[in-house]
Amino acid sequence: MTRDALAALDAADPLRAARDRFRLPPGVIYLDGNSLGPLPVATPGLVADAVERQWGEGLIRSWNDAGWIDLPQRIGAGIAPLLGTTPDCVIACDSVSVNLFKLAGAALAARPGRRVILAEAGDFPTDSYILAGLARIAGAELRLVARDAITAALDADTALLVLAHAHYATGAVHDMAAMNAAARAAGVLTLWDLSHSTGALALALDADGADLAVGCGYKYLGGGPGAPGFAWVARRHHADLQAPLQGWMGHAKPFDFTQDYTPATGVARLAVGTPPILAMTALAAGVATFDGIDMALAEAKSAALVRRFAILAADIAARFPALVVEPPPPGRHGAQLVLRHPRGRRVMAALIARGVIGDFRPSDRMRFGFPALYTRFTDLWDAAEALTQVLASDEWRDPRFDALGVVS
Amino acid sequence: MTRDALAALDAADPLRAARDRFRLPPGVIYLDGNSLGPLPVATPGLVADAVERQWGEGLIRSWNDAGWIDLPQRIGAGIAPLLGTTPDCVIACDSVSVNLFKLAGAALAARPGRRVILAEAGDFPTDSYILAGLARIAGAELRLVARDAITAALDADTALLVLAHAHYATGAVHDMAAMNAAARAAGVLTLWDLSHSTGALALALDADGADLAVGCGYKYLGGGPGAPGFAWVARRHHADLQAPLQGWMGHAKPFDFTQDYTPATGVARLAVGTPPILAMTALAAGVATFDGIDMALAEAKSAALVRRFAILAADIAARFPALVVEPPPPGRHGAQLVLRHPRGRRVMAALIARGVIGDFRPSDRMRFGFPALYTRFTDLWDAAEALTQVLASDEWRDPRFDALGVVS
Repeated sequence: MTRDALAALDAADPLRAARDRFRLPPGVIYLDGNSLGPLPVATPGLVADAVERQWGEGLIRSWNDAGWIDLPQRIGAGIAPLLGTTPDCVIACDSVSVNLFKLAGAALAARPGRRVILAEAGDFPTDSYILAGLARIAGAELRLVARDAITAALDADTALLVLAHAHYATGAVHDMAAMNAAARAAGVLTLWDLSHSTGALALALDADGADLAVGCGYKYLGGGPGAPGFAWVARRHHADLQAPLQGWMGHAKPFDFTQDYTPATGVARLAVGTPPILAMTALAAGVATFDGIDMALAEAKSAALVRRFAILAADIAARFPALVVEPPPPGRHGAQLVLRHPRGRRVMAALIARGVIGDFRPSDRMRFGFPALYTRFTDLWDAAEALTQVLASDEWRDPRFDALGVVS
Repeated sequence: MTRDALAALDAADPLRAARDRFRLPPGVIYLDGNSLGPLPVATPGLVADAVERQWGEGLIRSWNDAGWIDLPQRIGAGIAPLLGTTPDCVIACDSVSVNLFKLAGAALAARPGRRVILAEAGDFPTDSYILAGLARIAGAELRLVARDAITAALDADTALLVLAHAHYATGAVHDMAAMNAAARAAGVLTLWDLSHSTGALALALDADGADLAVGCGYKYLGGGPGAPGFAWVARRHHADLQAPLQGWMGHAKPFDFTQDYTPATGVARLAVGTPPILAMTALAAGVATFDGIDMALAEAKSAALVRRFAILAADIAARFPALVVEPPPPGRHGAQLVLRHPRGRRVMAALIARGVIGDFRPSDRMRFGFPALYTRFTDLWDAAEALTQVLASDEWRDPRFDALGVVS
């Protein structure tokens, strides 16, 4: 592999023009878009318009005049093609964690008599925290089982199976259709956390027979730091969807101010409080960066990036044996690669000091992400060069680098 | 009363300079800041900096470098003086509705054996919706009672009393110290919804012996449409506070990614998902508009505005008897006044078309808000003039005005 060969791949990349949709700072190779997506070019202008014209001049009138009131559904409709579903099945709202609580609670309500929530041990921590809190208040039980024991654990006590489609740390991807089928055969609902899938992998929630899903707005979707998440519900469940979190924005007629709660139709009832318009505006701009993108192409490009970075990293590991390349999981996998190093936190910090930005997950994982819309094949070469220089120098031995702490 | 007399009050107003902290559009008299506060002057620049420099250039590094990770607590500390409490007892997060769910759930957990949630009939609807959803999943019971029956209903089955301090529709204010004392005597925790109080009335949560509280960021606090809310917990409850919504941002060590949930110290554990930084940035700017403001002066000014607008409105009602002035509740009251008219929706829409912006609450209430930081006494005169002109003309008879729907 040579830099020229990688440059030739960039020149032939059918998605290469999508990079122009982002404002990437000079001197930075950004391999952490799986944690926080970079700024879309359109976002500053749209957010400034929402602040200064819609809010500043329109004031309260903008709930109608600027269409604020429908923004959660409009953004949901924009996300729908990325999920392989129809526009009316998705809504943008709250955080991933809060949405997980809503849908897991709705699943418990839909399966009376079944009190077990099944989830994968080692999945992203907030999912198990949320499910444990839900189980405590609902009188249910959270069972965490190893990845290879999940299907065997589906039983007549199980109401719900919660899985991350792509694993945050390893990138391993579940066979969604197969898991849905196994769950359905056991009378169990599925709830997918798509945080590391949406915008990275081609999804087909409807065709794969999923029941419920949540996902993240600030990673691949580019909605900005802490952007609202989204929730998806298969249409067959819309009529009897009953989430424990029910607020006025999910009411059929919020401005009638009635005492009793009458849910809105479909996923609109998953709205709770007043939607955060400034954050929603940025999320809408992020979602729009996927306009016209073929997700099968995007997934294939990310897989090619991962494969080539693994080869480059293996060459480095041959020279610096403390570095270990975690092989990409077999089959489909997330748009990321993990390199392990006993001083991974410091190595990553030294890389960031050189402008190559990834992140770190204890105890020794350096995680690099390869979103298809803006990552170039030549970025792999340049990142590998920087990693070689860091490991060949004393840069990573600086103990102040132990302070690194970044957000998933 | 003359316009000149009102202009003299403006000239003598010790808070008059605070109006310069807001960007109010020309030609508008904004009497709906109790629903959506106007744009602070500082907000556009701060939001643009968060978008373009912190996010665009700093990318993931800004969680540390720009202090994003502590923003919910820093904003909470800024809100604390408005509540009469200490900085470590407040956190900005999620929506009012979601925070109400968290704290009401925590109260149920703190009072095992007591299964009743008591609330006031006719309070802001989302509160009863949220409490009904919580009661359903927690196996508790929501009891809604009339205002004058609340203290008598406090019994040994009651875990929690939830009250809006200032009522959204009538502006009536509870005697917080007295209600807290009555609840405490019955072993009942209090949870106050401060949405229509924070930034409008002088509050003293600590001195008044409250237990829990939530409040709104987008009304008087000026955080922008759908801004995050806040949660307050009396320090005596910090150690055993256990909310049903528990996420990674409320974990003692979120970046250790442990499977088990260990709550952070104090109110920091009320964070759930990743905080919405753009929305938080605007909220911080809104909270900063209260820097150096004496809330006793602010409450007194709003009361004076309400009293004078009631007099002006009574003169109009004498001429147009379909208009009824709802007298401000006795004693302390919210910074608002309600005028009733059988065609209130159309009258308010016609007023808005003239640039005098209030809102409408079914079935016949036109609601006007008088925040102290930017409302002028002369605004009252000009708004009354506009109302007279609307009622004297056929403007309000236009049926298309029935489409008006604005957000509380």
